[in-house]
Amino acid sequence: MTEQTGRRRTADQTRAVILTAARERFAADGYERATIRSIAADAAIDPAMVMRYFGSKEKLFAAAAEFDLRLPDLTELPRDELGARLVEHFLDRWEGDDTLMALLRASVTNEAAAERMRQIFAGQLGPLIAHLHPGDAGDPAAAVRAGLLATQTLGLALCRYVLPIGPVADLPRATVVAWIAPVVQRYLIAPDPTA
Amino acid sequence: MTEQTGRRRTADQTRAVILTAARERFAADGYERATIRSIAADAAIDPAMVMRYFGSKEKLFAAAAEFDLRLPDLTELPRDELGARLVEHFLDRWEGDDTLMALLRASVTNEAAAERMRQIFAGQLGPLIAHLHPGDAGDPAAAVRAGLLATQTLGLALCRYVLPIGPVADLPRATVVAWIAPVVQRYLIAPDPTA
Repeated sequence: MTEQTGRRRTADQTRAVILTAARERFAADGYERATIRSIAADAAIDPAMVMRYFGSKEKLFAAAAEFDLRLPDLTELPRDELGARLVEHFLDRWEGDDTLMALLRASVTNEAAAERMRQIFAGQLGPLIAHLHPGDAGDPAAAVRAGLLATQTLGLALCRYVLPIGPVADLPRATVVAWIAPVVQRYLIAPDPTA
Repeated sequence: MTEQTGRRRTADQTRAVILTAARERFAADGYERATIRSIAADAAIDPAMVMRYFGSKEKLFAAAAEFDLRLPDLTELPRDELGARLVEHFLDRWEGDDTLMALLRASVTNEAAAERMRQIFAGQLGPLIAHLHPGDAGDPAAAVRAGLLATQTLGLALCRYVLPIGPVADLPRATVVAWIAPVVQRYLIAPDPTA
């Protein structure tokens, strides 16, 4: 075991310190305005060291924007609580971690960030939703439901955390859940209105 | 009346040409990456002329991002068609004009753009919604409904036009309306679930 001092870090610890600073900086400033220099300063590390660890701002962003929604197994939740549980889970994940804010700020102008966002929402959510509809047409329909869920949850994040729009940012958490859970429930399990 | 030639424009025409180029460029590149130089090149105008007309990139953006949602009088629409009519109206406004795309791309990192977005969604939508609830608590409740509407409609725009997320971008217009109209309807007129 390594002795911990203020001046000595393992490579993994240095990576972690840089990634934390990067997430905060990308979340606060967006991709274009965040710089290796400012991230290095936040991490109290030489910019050359940041470059040695990650190679470029693009690669640093890719590493910082790894994100697991850590979705619960939806088939194990009571069916009429799916919407509320997912809204609460989403608020927890958003508020507990700067990564989604960094991703959303970057994804409107940066293709790598947009692709990561697609992977998170389509890639992680789609298969879970497919399990809720075992008799259905399957993956294409589940991908549409995952996408619709993204419209509501990313729109909520945009208006509550990013812009923010006052009346949405100020809503108590329980009120957010009360308004939005039925919408999420609709996208998860309501019959296809065009079928 | 001024004779029109390829080389002669009135000041209003020059302004209009610059603003069109600016909207397209801000929409495509986002606020940070768009430059006076690139906008001037698109407009086939000297960058110094763009500066003479607008003074700075910030002021050019402010002028380019003037936007009227041109919302219909909601009280004159059949109550059970409100959601569908608003979703269709929103898709029309989004697809017919680069301004909202420019605003959404800019608003995640630029405070002036975020403020404009708040004015459009809270300022233009809130009072119209208040008219749907004449007996209600009034403006604060209407502002919450306008904000919730923004979460769904901006989230839809984000996923359909900006990122885009394939399954949402590829949905036929009628399918978008079928899925999302009941959600918009909910935010406009459903009883407050916390009341």
